[in-house]
Amino acid sequence: MPDTLERLEQVIAARKTASPDTSYVARLNAAGIEKIAQKLGEEATEAIIAALSGGREEVVGEAADLIFHLIVLLQARRITLDEVMAELDRREGTSGIEEKANRNK
Amino acid sequence: MPDTLERLEQVIAARKTASPDTSYVARLNAAGIEKIAQKLGEEATEAIIAALSGGREEVVGEAADLIFHLIVLLQARRITLDEVMAELDRREGTSGIEEKANRNK
Amino acid sequence: MPDTLERLEQVIAARKTASPDTSYVARLNAAGIEKIAQKLGEEATEAIIAALSGGREEVVGEAADLIFHLIVLLQARRITLDEVMAELDRREGTSGIEEKANRNK
Amino acid sequence: MPDTLERLEQVIAARKTASPDTSYVARLNAAGIEKIAQKLGEEATEAIIAALSGGREEVVGEAADLIFHLIVLLQARRITLDEVMAELDRREGTSGIEEKANRNK
Repeated sequence: MPDTLERLEQVIAARKTASPDTSYVARLNAAGIEKIAQKLGEEATEAIIAALSGGREEVVGEAADLIFHLIVLLQARRITLDEVMAELDRREGTSGIEEKANRNK
Repeated sequence: MPDTLERLEQVIAARKTASPDTSYVARLNAAGIEKIAQKLGEEATEAIIAALSGGREEVVGEAADLIFHLIVLLQARRITLDEVMAELDRREGTSGIEEKANRNK
Repeated sequence: MPDTLERLEQVIAARKTASPDTSYVARLNAAGIEKIAQKLGEEATEAIIAALSGGREEVVGEAADLIFHLIVLLQARRITLDEVMAELDRREGTSGIEEKANRNK
Repeated sequence: MPDTLERLEQVIAARKTASPDTSYVARLNAAGIEKIAQKLGEEATEAIIAALSGGREEVVGEAADLIFHLIVLLQARRITLDEVMAELDRREGTSGIEEKANRNK
């Protein structure tokens, strides 16, 4: 599991500088952060719909799409997955309801 | 990074059977898949907004929220992160644009 | 303003039974409620992004798209705009905060 | 139907300058466009979920919420419903698929 995301992050980073003609990631980056954010919204919607009325495989596929586009979005803001993982680590120990309460302050 | 998601998945799985009074995850699960999907949609919207007009820290926080709720959603459908990672691995090698083209078929 | 939505609702209703080859609405309906819901999600995301970083004209265009697809979605569930307007009328008089409080019960 | 939206738009405009303590609309506007956009995203997600797995009444309620928050968003960008209706009128005559094709250019 771990290696997957590390490799994926590297692949996405490498593709950013590829030609938009051959790379989907390069094309997204050329289109700008609004386009990348739009794609994240689409994938989230698809994940929601799959979760409610799709089969298991569909949910797996949409979750993969969502993670993929989240990494593209993070890179467009020059954020690494490590930073997100560090944030998740930081919250651990805090119970979910406490964390939520803290966030809502 | 790797251990973070594994630990997070275990923590979320453990909390599912906790009391809704003390656990946010238990509360979400008690409310049902629609409520969990709703939360995923909210977090995706927040991630989009943060990406467009928020600071780096905000984006990191929203990405963490999104991953957290994605895992909750996957578990509600009895899907493990390993399955999603396997799907991401499977796609690797396929270039982004090819993958997209395949998906659109 | 009024006539616009009434006409639009009629146009959309008429197109539902047209050929998917020539009508976008027919194509959406042939694809099913999940596809229509997906489009609503996409248009909402686009409206959000336009509101935050687009020009006035873009926001107007995305709002029009959102209303259009909302009507398509309502019709797929056999709901008329009149019913939605009646619900909005019902709420009027109730102040926003009260209404919100009532909804959250 | 027509009068409903006109009245709603006036009510929302009037509430913008009310006290955030008593008006939900004033509170949203005080919180800023990001908060309003976030609410639109939430309501769209709720409409999607209701369309897929809710009852008729739920869909009606969520559609009303979505329209309400769309008007709040438009006003925050100083756009009237009339402008959106004019855009919908402009598109009429254009068949859906043509319109879509034009938009995708």
